[in-house]
Amino acid sequence: MTAYEIIHKKRDGRELSGSEIDRMVSGLLAGDVADYQMTAFLMAVFFRGMSPGETELLTRAMLASGLTIDTSTIQGAKVDKHSTGGVGDKLSLIVAPVAAAAGVFVPMISGRGLGHTGGTLDKLESIPGLSTAFGPEEFVTLVDRIGMAIVGQSPDVVPADRRMYALRDVTATVECVPLIVGSILSKKLAAGLDALTLDVKVGRGAFMATRERGHELARALLETARRLKLPAVAVLTDMNAPLGLTVGNALEVVESIDVLRGGGPTDVRETSLELAAQMIVLGSAAGDIEEARRTAERVLDSGEALEVFTRFVEAQGGDPRVVDDMSVLPRASIVAPVTAVAAGDVTAIDSLEIGLAGVGLGAGRVRTGEDVDPAVGIVITTPVGSPVATGETLATVHAAREDAAARAVERVRDAFTIGGDAAPGETRILEIMTQG
Amino acid sequence: MTAYEIIHKKRDGRELSGSEIDRMVSGLLAGDVADYQMTAFLMAVFFRGMSPGETELLTRAMLASGLTIDTSTIQGAKVDKHSTGGVGDKLSLIVAPVAAAAGVFVPMISGRGLGHTGGTLDKLESIPGLSTAFGPEEFVTLVDRIGMAIVGQSPDVVPADRRMYALRDVTATVECVPLIVGSILSKKLAAGLDALTLDVKVGRGAFMATRERGHELARALLETARRLKLPAVAVLTDMNAPLGLTVGNALEVVESIDVLRGGGPTDVRETSLELAAQMIVLGSAAGDIEEARRTAERVLDSGEALEVFTRFVEAQGGDPRVVDDMSVLPRASIVAPVTAVAAGDVTAIDSLEIGLAGVGLGAGRVRTGEDVDPAVGIVITTPVGSPVATGETLATVHAAREDAAARAVERVRDAFTIGGDAAPGETRILEIMTQG
Repeated sequence: MTAYEIIHKKRDGRELSGSEIDRMVSGLLAGDVADYQMTAFLMAVFFRGMSPGETELLTRAMLASGLTIDTSTIQGAKVDKHSTGGVGDKLSLIVAPVAAAAGVFVPMISGRGLGHTGGTLDKLESIPGLSTAFGPEEFVTLVDRIGMAIVGQSPDVVPADRRMYALRDVTATVECVPLIVGSILSKKLAAGLDALTLDVKVGRGAFMATRERGHELARALLETARRLKLPAVAVLTDMNAPLGLTVGNALEVVESIDVLRGGGPTDVRETSLELAAQMIVLGSAAGDIEEARRTAERVLDSGEALEVFTRFVEAQGGDPRVVDDMSVLPRASIVAPVTAVAAGDVTAIDSLEIGLAGVGLGAGRVRTGEDVDPAVGIVITTPVGSPVATGETLATVHAAREDAAARAVERVRDAFTIGGDAAPGETRILEIMTQG
Repeated sequence: MTAYEIIHKKRDGRELSGSEIDRMVSGLLAGDVADYQMTAFLMAVFFRGMSPGETELLTRAMLASGLTIDTSTIQGAKVDKHSTGGVGDKLSLIVAPVAAAAGVFVPMISGRGLGHTGGTLDKLESIPGLSTAFGPEEFVTLVDRIGMAIVGQSPDVVPADRRMYALRDVTATVECVPLIVGSILSKKLAAGLDALTLDVKVGRGAFMATRERGHELARALLETARRLKLPAVAVLTDMNAPLGLTVGNALEVVESIDVLRGGGPTDVRETSLELAAQMIVLGSAAGDIEEARRTAERVLDSGEALEVFTRFVEAQGGDPRVVDDMSVLPRASIVAPVTAVAAGDVTAIDSLEIGLAGVGLGAGRVRTGEDVDPAVGIVITTPVGSPVATGETLATVHAAREDAAARAVERVRDAFTIGGDAAPGETRILEIMTQG
């Protein structure tokens, strides 16, 4: 089978075999499938989809393109949490230490921000000295010693995803369930996990704009994980408004530490506890989900999770004083208020617009490889449900330059809806989905 | 609008503007739309199609990518015939001189064979000395002087088609109506035509396997030509069995000259006369189609068309003795009979299989740029409808090597169906479609 024939077969909606899928994936890396053939193939997959069997085979082919990290030396359950990406999503910084404090090992391989969604690595690297560049062996040693580590992807791990994602990113083939599933699960399987909690975000600031689409993605992730013998749970969470009150790298670290100290916004705390509890159950560190929820709450409120976080920061080269003295973090020179032009209740805050305002300030990037400014971002003062008076401060913009600040102030103001029907529901957690 | 946004828009089925389509086409040539973006776009077009307006704009954008040949010095109507490609399709060699002899100027820019379908240039070049490589000015001079010329495409004419076709050919995006229309009509418009007769082939050996698909392509060609102010007629012709009795370059030249001498197979003669008559009407060299048919028949039977053909061969550097002495053409060293293994009527001859047998002998090519052998091919002895006895010769294979001959003999034998229901209909001409 040539690449041409495989594209043709997928184009016509016929089921591909494992060797055909492998031919495309390994051929791309070997150079005998051209980039322009892969993108035609990816667009055909966008239109024709993939069966559960094909999605499994795609994930296997991608996994086989690189090395799998050997975590067998770690005596205990290795469980990770993966988010499909959101605005203000700093949950990894809380969930990982909570789960680790409860006795689960968390080998987390994370990514950088792109477009309106932030990345865990960018957030962590706002802590002076902290590095996320560790090779597989150092990574395993860190997880074994601290209970957790958060590092960037090694080029040796799933190189096919790196190539395929770069092509998807410029050809409008990102929003495609089987391709998303292959990308996420191949990387997670390569990290040598025993189980996985998936945070599938739904809404304006998420990959999947509607609950139906989020459900479809979660179902495909769970089914493919099942076929690959990876126990998993998916939590569908609401991403219409930014998560918590901060968007921006150092600002989100501050908020995460607030939560680890027992404070912080309720939505961040509750979502973190639920995701950590699911990891604790998957890692058999609790008998059932109720016990796991109590355990998560206990290690958070006792400071044990904060202690793990402190050791993690230090182990990865960061300044551990950050947990007591947030002034070690970079701060923006300009802090500009965003004021309300009308009175009423805040009924919505458009997370996509807030995310894009953050990118405009330099907190995120438009293209892979661009630098981000750790100090800049947005702090929301009046979350959804707050009553506001005309002229009252809705948010503050943290900026490096006056012109960027002025643009962000307008964009953030427009992201707020004041008056009208209030957004329904109080919780971020829409649904918990299992493999059963 | 970036290439990404344009791909995204087409992917989602939204109508593209002229500047968006132009951005993709001109961007490909300028290098700011990557090949891998163009192929994703082409696959999205394959699935979403193009509206008549978009197809017109695509054709315009492709036309604008290169120069348009100035035929204004020719005092008379310039009319071409274009075939979507078939097996044994040597009609251009007959139609062009018949139309020219009737007073129409025929500036024909033709192509080479690829896959199972042959190319007019390959056929002509089997005539010793004949060249099809003429620049635009020489081409116009030839047409003006002889009444016709058949040349290859200049690299300056529709360079976008060259690039796009090369990408379509390796990404399974060839069989797509708007892309076919853009490719055909941009090249025809660049040749400075006043009108065009389209031979849309339907069946086993054609691009469009079913009559419905052929009808769809013909309708799109006529509608786009109308929008571009190019008068056109489409003739839907049956391509289930090879056209005439020969497949192979020099062999098809021999058959064409037979027809120009008033002989040859009935299907080749009748289809040629119909296509030429349509050109004669479009070129206003006759008042109506009945008069045009009589004119075409008259110039064929009087030898006037053969005279034009002779002058054309000589003007393009070929040996004009070919019309009287076919021994000047290359001949294959091996001529092997294909014998019937059963008795009965020949009810079908699979033109796709015959075409592929020809490629196997070296008469055609699998990839662009490969050489063809002018001498080899297949001669059918018993066309559809003939009664045959066991052991009787169905066809002869003309080959350069014994092993190739043996393979072709088997393939040709398998292409014949003997017995069963006879193929319906006697004529190749299924339907004549106008722009009205």
